[in-house]
Formats: sequence, C-alpha cells, structure tokens
Amino acid sequence: MTRWGILGSGRIAHKFAQDLLTLPDAQLYAVASSDQSRADEFARDYSIPHAFGSYEDLLTLTDLDVVYVATPHVKHHENVMMLLNGGISVLGEKPFAMNSKQVREMVDTARSKKVFLMEALWSRFMPGIQKALELAQSGTIGNVVSVKADFGFKAPFLPDKRLFNKELGGGSLLDIGIYPLFLSYLFLGKPTAIKALAKFGSTGVDEQCGMVLSYADGQLALLDSTLLAKTDCIGLIQGETGQIRIHSRFHETTGVTLQPEEQESTTLMFERQTHGYDYEAQHVMNCLNEGRTESPLWSLDDSLNLMDLLDTVGAEAGIVY
Amino acid sequence: MTRWGILGSGRIAHKFAQDLLTLPDAQLYAVASSDQSRADEFARDYSIPHAFGSYEDLLTLTDLDVVYVATPHVKHHENVMMLLNGGISVLGEKPFAMNSKQVREMVDTARSKKVFLMEALWSRFMPGIQKALELAQSGTIGNVVSVKADFGFKAPFLPDKRLFNKELGGGSLLDIGIYPLFLSYLFLGKPTAIKALAKFGSTGVDEQCGMVLSYADGQLALLDSTLLAKTDCIGLIQGETGQIRIHSRFHETTGVTLQPEEQESTTLMFERQTHGYDYEAQHVMNCLNEGRTESPLWSLDDSLNLMDLLDTVGAEAGIVY
Repeated sequence: MTRWGILGSGRIAHKFAQDLLTLPDAQLYAVASSDQSRADEFARDYSIPHAFGSYEDLLTLTDLDVVYVATPHVKHHENVMMLLNGGISVLGEKPFAMNSKQVREMVDTARSKKVFLMEALWSRFMPGIQKALELAQSGTIGNVVSVKADFGFKAPFLPDKRLFNKELGGGSLLDIGIYPLFLSYLFLGKPTAIKALAKFGSTGVDEQCGMVLSYADGQLALLDSTLLAKTDCIGLIQGETGQIRIHSRFHETTGVTLQPEEQESTTLMFERQTHGYDYEAQHVMNCLNEGRTESPLWSLDDSLNLMDLLDTVGAEAGIVY
Repeated sequence: MTRWGILGSGRIAHKFAQDLLTLPDAQLYAVASSDQSRADEFARDYSIPHAFGSYEDLLTLTDLDVVYVATPHVKHHENVMMLLNGGISVLGEKPFAMNSKQVREMVDTARSKKVFLMEALWSRFMPGIQKALELAQSGTIGNVVSVKADFGFKAPFLPDKRLFNKELGGGSLLDIGIYPLFLSYLFLGKPTAIKALAKFGSTGVDEQCGMVLSYADGQLALLDSTLLAKTDCIGLIQGETGQIRIHSRFHETTGVTLQPEEQESTTLMFERQTHGYDYEAQHVMNCLNEGRTESPLWSLDDSLNLMDLLDTVGAEAGIVY
C-alpha cells in the first residue's frame, strides 16, 4: 500500500484523487491546502485521514510515501523544494516549474538527496501514446519525417483567473503548449532549431502560440496552442511510408490509428473509466516499490529537456515571465 | 471563341489542354515547344492547327487571344516577358517567376502595355475553395484564429529531375509550398511576421519546409510542404466558433466541411470530370471578354504578395536560388 499526500485542493487535485481511488494499492493519506476548511472538505470528499491547512504540515507525517503537487504553476518550485528537502518523494504537476533554472534546482536536490521525483507528465503513461511510440519505433511508418500536434480550447476571458494572469504563469504555452512540445520530444527528441510566434492578449499572456522545430536529420515539428478556439487536438506522426494518428484529445487519447501507405488502416482503442491520472500514479508506485528515484519512462533529464524547449519557445516568441 | 496558345509541352501542358477541350468557348489554336517534333506530337494529340519548334514563333500569329505558359519555373519570367512585349495576353503557371523582382517586372510590363496577365493560381478558382472563403467571410465560424495547410507527396529521388535540381528551381517550397501559402494569404492576407525552417537534401534543394506566420490581429498560420512523404493535404480554417475543413487535396478540393461549434457538420461536395484547370481557363476567357487586363479574383498585386511570401519564407529558411 502506498500512502499518498496531495498538496493543493483545486480542480486537478480532485480529479487525481478520484483516479487514485481506483487503484487498489493506493491510499489517500493526507491533503494539504492553504486553507484549512478547503482541506477538511477535500478530506471529507475522499475519506482522507489527514487534512492540513498549511503545506508545511505535510512534513510532520513520518509515514507518507509520496506527495502529488497540484498547485498553480508559479508555486511548483517552492512546493516541490520544500518536500524534497523534507525527504519526501514527489510527483509534481506540469509544467514542472516556471523555467529551466528552477527545474535544474529541483532535479539537483532530488538527485543529491536520493529522493524520488517525477514530473506529472501523465500523457507519457497513456496506453495510446505508448502504443503510438511503439508503432513508430518498430518501423511501421518508416522513418519519421514530421510530428504535428495542436492543443486548443476556448477559454472564457476572465482576466483575474490564472490562465489570463501573467503573474500566475498564465497563457497557452505553459498550460497546454507543453503537450504538443512533449509529443514532438517523445518522437523526435531534442531539436536543433526552434522558431515560434505568439499572440499576446490584453493581460500580456500568450493567447496562442505557433511553433516550428527542426531536427538533426531534417525532421520537422509543427505545433500550436491556443486559448481562442476549440481545435482538433490531434497528434500526427508522419513517416515516409505511413502515418500514425493519435486521436483527440491526443494528450489523453483513447485511440490510435496506424495508416500504412496504400494499405488498410488499423485503429486501436484504449477505453478507460478514469480521468487518466491513474496510469502515472500506478507508475510512480511501481517506481517506489522498485526502489527507484527516477522514472525510466519520464526521467528528470526528460523534464529538463522539455522545460528547455518551453524556455526556448518562450524566448523566441517573446513570452517572458 | 477564345484562341489559346500553349507555351511548353510537358505534363501540365497536357492536362491543361485536356481541360480546355471541355470548354465550348475555348479553341486550342497553337502550341510551341523547344523541340519541333514534341510540338507536332502535342498538336496531333489535341488537333491544334499551329505547332512551333520555338517559343518566339508564337509571336508570328496575329489572331492569338491568350497564351498559357507551362515551362519550368526558371523559364517563366523570360517566356512571359517575351509574350507581354509582343502584346499577347498571358496566363502564366505558378510560381509566377523565381522571385519578387522578376514578378514585379512582369507586372509592370503588363500594366504599362495594358495587356492581360494572370498567374495560373488555379486553386483560387476551385468552387470548393471559393465556397470555403464565402463561408468564412459570412461569419459561420466567427473570427478566424488560424489557418493550417500541408502539402506533401513522396517524390522519388531523381537528382537529375527538376524537383531535385536547384538550377531548375527545385525543392518543395516553390513547387508545392506555394499552395499552403496561397491558402493562408486567401484567408488571412499579408502576415506581420514569418518564421520558417527547412531540410536540405544532398542536391541542395529544400526537401521539406515548415512555416509559422502571424498576422495583425494575432491570427496564426502553420504551413508545411514536403517531398519526403504523402501527407494529408488538408486545409483547415479555424474560427472562434467553428472550423472549415477543405478536403484533400485542398488545392484542388472537391469537398468542404463546415463544422460550427456544438452543431452538426455540413459537407458540400464539388465533383468534377476535369483536372480542374478549366475553372481558371474559363475565368481568363471571362476577363478577356469583359476587356479586363487583370483578374478581379487573383490580381497582379495578389501575385506580388504571394511571391513576397515565398521570398521571405525562403530567406528565413535559407532557401536561395
């Protein structure tokens, strides 16, 4: 049995807690909010024995196995560092932090203290994404020549909310642009060049961002994120002899279609009853049970590389926090 | 009856001639090739009364109404200038020339001599494209926030052929990248910024090119062309409240799907029996009959703007001729 703590009590904390309930080896053991009554309410919802009105109080528990950090972007670094310095294993929500410097410090701390740390890049653990990667790596579409992915939804313009608040790390790139960038990284690795353009709204955040990346062997990635419209949210891996289509929304896909050139296509479905956070949670528990301090599927180097991509796209497009 | 001459006798000249045969008001009147026997053969195929072994001989005909120029890219400027200086109306294959400077000279000459000139941007005259534009302009998807379009086919690597020959203007951008750029221009006009990356093959031509463009109101275009793989060849107009999908291959589409947000989609089909060059040819004849020297649908300014886009993308991506 793995005893989980949850740091934060917002929307994603709720969804994660609901998915943890489906895992027989997981125990919801503690929740910490900046507000005691919110922590109490959250604890009641999921029958959690410990409810704290301050994040620091999590450190008082000596039998906690791992904490999931689900605070706003700008808090990630501070919250994760506190836990790591307390010797507590961490699954930290994406984006891992606000920039590479912060991620580097978190990674160095986890490694020097030999404490487990992983970015909650849940898409990496989706069965559909894993299958798509396996299909590409096994040569079903020949050499990959390009990756395309978009992520867009129509966000109501609420200037005080995090998504449109620059101080809170708002904007499309950090929030959802990370998914297309993740997909390109998963299939093509580190690019050799990055170009990007963004639209800035009245609150200064990027309301949409378009990116083109190129790679050592000439592959290209075309990626975009937008808060202005609901887009297809498709991932498309184009090979020399076919393509793999990761169904909408690709970051939590339940379907993958392999279309080899001039042959019948095959669609594989990966239905599920959960929000999809159970896959990453189960992976974390497996890692802990195996005595690992890093995930073999989404390592801390992967997190550093992804944050570097976000930093570089931001710098290219003029998105600065 | 409009008497047509065709300058060039390659693959596209054949397809154009076949489509002209379907137009009751068009007469195939002359063909000119750099080789007399090829001209004779072409003339036999389509019962053309005049067959010349040199382009200049077209100028000897006093009753020619218009000439379609179907030579390789690098010859366009020279061939069009010869005809314009001879006072002959011209429909010139795309890309109109190799760069903006050449197009500017062609345009200035046509205007000063008051001779009809139009770029054979056949997609502009496709009923499906026209319908898509009408749908966007009538507000069915709200404000347009992005345009996406790809054009890719797998070209056999034949280093001596035009497509891979830098001297002959080979590469993906000029040949097929022009179509995605055209689509972005049709729906969004002139961009305020352009970023692009390309892959260069062993013969020095761009084998694929990825582009991101941004516009005054923050719209984005993500476009690409490739010779390395057969891609979807879709045009996608994303609006704030829906999207318009121009079916594959979008540049000669026979179908358009309007998907308003949270409503049933509607698909309109535009079947045809021809290659699709008859629409532009009919438009040219209409213009000539109306005494026009420029098309109201694809003006010489449009051609200049499109060539500027190609120039800028090329410069950005390092594609130089």
